[in-house]
Amino acid sequence: MPDRLPRATKMVEDQTIERLKRHVELENEAALVSDLNNMHSADIAEVFECITPEERESYFKLLDPEKAADVLEELNPQLQVELLSTTDEDEATRIVSKMPHDLMADFLGDLTDEEINNYLNKLPQRVSSQIRELMTYPEDTAGGIMTTEYFSVGEDMTVEQTISYVRSKSDSNIDFYYIYVVDKLNHLLGVLSLRTLISSPLDMKVGNIMTTDVFKVHTLDDQEYVADSLIKYGFLALPVVDNFNRIKGIVTWDDAHYVSEEETTEEIYASSGISTDVIDEDEILSGKIMLSVRARAPWLLITLVGAFGAVHVADYFENILDRLPVIAIFIPLLIGLGGNIGTQSVTLMVRGLSTGQIVMNSAIKQVLREIRVGIIIGLAFGLLVMLVTWGWKDNISLGIVVGSAMTANMTLATLLGAALPFILKRFNVDPAVASGPFIATAIDIVGLAVYFLLVSVSLKFLV
Amino acid sequence: MPDRLPRATKMVEDQTIERLKRHVELENEAALVSDLNNMHSADIAEVFECITPEERESYFKLLDPEKAADVLEELNPQLQVELLSTTDEDEATRIVSKMPHDLMADFLGDLTDEEINNYLNKLPQRVSSQIRELMTYPEDTAGGIMTTEYFSVGEDMTVEQTISYVRSKSDSNIDFYYIYVVDKLNHLLGVLSLRTLISSPLDMKVGNIMTTDVFKVHTLDDQEYVADSLIKYGFLALPVVDNFNRIKGIVTWDDAHYVSEEETTEEIYASSGISTDVIDEDEILSGKIMLSVRARAPWLLITLVGAFGAVHVADYFENILDRLPVIAIFIPLLIGLGGNIGTQSVTLMVRGLSTGQIVMNSAIKQVLREIRVGIIIGLAFGLLVMLVTWGWKDNISLGIVVGSAMTANMTLATLLGAALPFILKRFNVDPAVASGPFIATAIDIVGLAVYFLLVSVSLKFLV
Repeated sequence: MPDRLPRATKMVEDQTIERLKRHVELENEAALVSDLNNMHSADIAEVFECITPEERESYFKLLDPEKAADVLEELNPQLQVELLSTTDEDEATRIVSKMPHDLMADFLGDLTDEEINNYLNKLPQRVSSQIRELMTYPEDTAGGIMTTEYFSVGEDMTVEQTISYVRSKSDSNIDFYYIYVVDKLNHLLGVLSLRTLISSPLDMKVGNIMTTDVFKVHTLDDQEYVADSLIKYGFLALPVVDNFNRIKGIVTWDDAHYVSEEETTEEIYASSGISTDVIDEDEILSGKIMLSVRARAPWLLITLVGAFGAVHVADYFENILDRLPVIAIFIPLLIGLGGNIGTQSVTLMVRGLSTGQIVMNSAIKQVLREIRVGIIIGLAFGLLVMLVTWGWKDNISLGIVVGSAMTANMTLATLLGAALPFILKRFNVDPAVASGPFIATAIDIVGLAVYFLLVSVSLKFLV
Repeated sequence: MPDRLPRATKMVEDQTIERLKRHVELENEAALVSDLNNMHSADIAEVFECITPEERESYFKLLDPEKAADVLEELNPQLQVELLSTTDEDEATRIVSKMPHDLMADFLGDLTDEEINNYLNKLPQRVSSQIRELMTYPEDTAGGIMTTEYFSVGEDMTVEQTISYVRSKSDSNIDFYYIYVVDKLNHLLGVLSLRTLISSPLDMKVGNIMTTDVFKVHTLDDQEYVADSLIKYGFLALPVVDNFNRIKGIVTWDDAHYVSEEETTEEIYASSGISTDVIDEDEILSGKIMLSVRARAPWLLITLVGAFGAVHVADYFENILDRLPVIAIFIPLLIGLGGNIGTQSVTLMVRGLSTGQIVMNSAIKQVLREIRVGIIIGLAFGLLVMLVTWGWKDNISLGIVVGSAMTANMTLATLLGAALPFILKRFNVDPAVASGPFIATAIDIVGLAVYFLLVSVSLKFLV
């Protein structure tokens, strides 16, 4: 399953952290132990994010295995490895064996084969083989995020038998919402909500009350599709089946949430030209520095080429610069504002397309809307710039030229910024990559060209 | 509750839409009706997003009230109003009365008092007063996103009584995960999962098996805090209480998901200087054009002031521009690349802070990391730019100046881009607003200053 990141909203007060630290200073281990084990694992995880590795290690040792496993679940892979590597092997195995299978698989996925075997060989055969299977699925597929912990029963079982089966498992840490009905060979026949179960007569066979038209996904379906369908249809969990419709696991609503958060992060990164192909989205901030460089350099390089295009435009008009150097000083102003309003348009289109609030059919409508915004703001800003320039340089012609360049530039920027995402999507290019670098450069070039053309046609009034 | 936006991943094939349209052409209403009513409401909603208002209207009329209500739930407010305004009053009331209470309240919230009364007066007194109460809570609070449909029982009820109570309600469209235990005055005493219920002896009193330490939120708590806690602790629903600990409603996991998506959108908008204070985040693309202008102009205005700062820097060095106009043509290149790599740094810091992957304590570490990336990329790009400029203008000094300006500029950009978000957050300013416009301008000014300084100190080699 995807990494769990604690949310931004800080819910653990600093005084909690202070209190824990005081216990350490006073060497009051008893108090520390009870405090820690009384905290919610998600809160402990939040504390762990804000303290030193040494503190983490000493606190972690004091947690009982159950709690330690719960806390690990909430931490990102780097911290999981950091903490377990400082724990002695048997204890570590005891903790890991208490983690949900999907998280165990993710954790082991980052280790060496030898380490993996050390862990798995200590687990019951049935579990370790399940984990090994989970580890075979690509990270970003249904198989990669599913868990193998779910309830399945035969279609001939009665409601009463099913209920007592669930009762018998009530100690297990499987949190379940649906019961899946399967045949002897584990083919998925139907699904049953806990609610249907208790609302039905005890002697009824589950085969007669189950829903047979089950929405299911394939082990190799893309995680984004899985998350989107789960959220779209409002399911709590989705069954994952193989080519032969045998149920292999389930994906739960919280997995879906973390997937869509992960996808959003990648989208946000892409929009400023940070690629998550060479490096995992959560490693850009912590992984090898050269990987971060490789994630960021390519788009910058493309921008560089584009920027030289802008340089050539300016160079083409060098004779004008020679005769009237003052016009150079307004370049940052024009391309700066053009870039900003253009980026706004891109941001709105890209996000709208990704949330589905904008559909391709409404492209024209949206682009026209953006242009109107561009014209309104462009005229206001153009006027402002004209007046300031006129007053400052005491040259009305210059003011008019710079001002109208500003208006033209901002309007064109909204046009480019709004239209390009649709064009890219039309050609199946992720529009997210359109924003930031790419568009900014396009706008620079167009903006400069417009400016210099305006200057050259009105040169006689300026000099 | 927050608006439900269909997800980007298109799950309805175009041929489905084509088939529906064909039914219309062939005036085969029977086929159209059955096709529509056999589709999942979320899919119908997706179709509605991609067809003309006329088509929407004609399709909508063919849905039975239940289905129509389900479809409305999935649509954004604009479409809800559009569709119901074309439906005759009684039918509309019948449909609205089938919507979940929280969505009904949101829908009515956008109507005039008169229209609201038209709807509510036709509903049972108990329901209409619940709706009126829901409508009193601010949109972005727990009260604003909660629903009043949940199960509560007295602590003296036995497991058996509770189960039969749930059975008796099994026709209602309340989808519930927990049962809340309250006293006569509706004070929240504890909570019970459906699973605990079926795992306990039938004659046990719920008061003895309930969890008394309940995580609850207040009706006026901020929706982001509510969503974050629900997701952080992995609850399916959270009870919402008033000042007297009386339960008023519950917030469910899907509400939480839509809230955090809404907050992400606002964050993304803010990062390109689009404010969602004057206009609702989902209206920027569809609401009044002047509101969109007001949402976007303020930050652009701030950028304009900043840009004039950059202009003044350039103006300060006008004598240099007079003697060596060629240096002007490299301005777009330098501020362009500086802006891009700086934006990358901002994006990483802002997103990291918002997902919690970066904590304030690690500020120094992160900034140093960004600077290292800036130096590595800056040196490579500086060298490249030096060679190109040298070869192109056949002037090695110029190449060296522009190249080293590029290196310095990119390094400074990562420093500014990484540090400013932390500084803003330190002073409790939302770091999201730091990115885009603000930083870009700061980088422009610093970059220009560095460039012109380098030029002026090495002028004797250049001319």
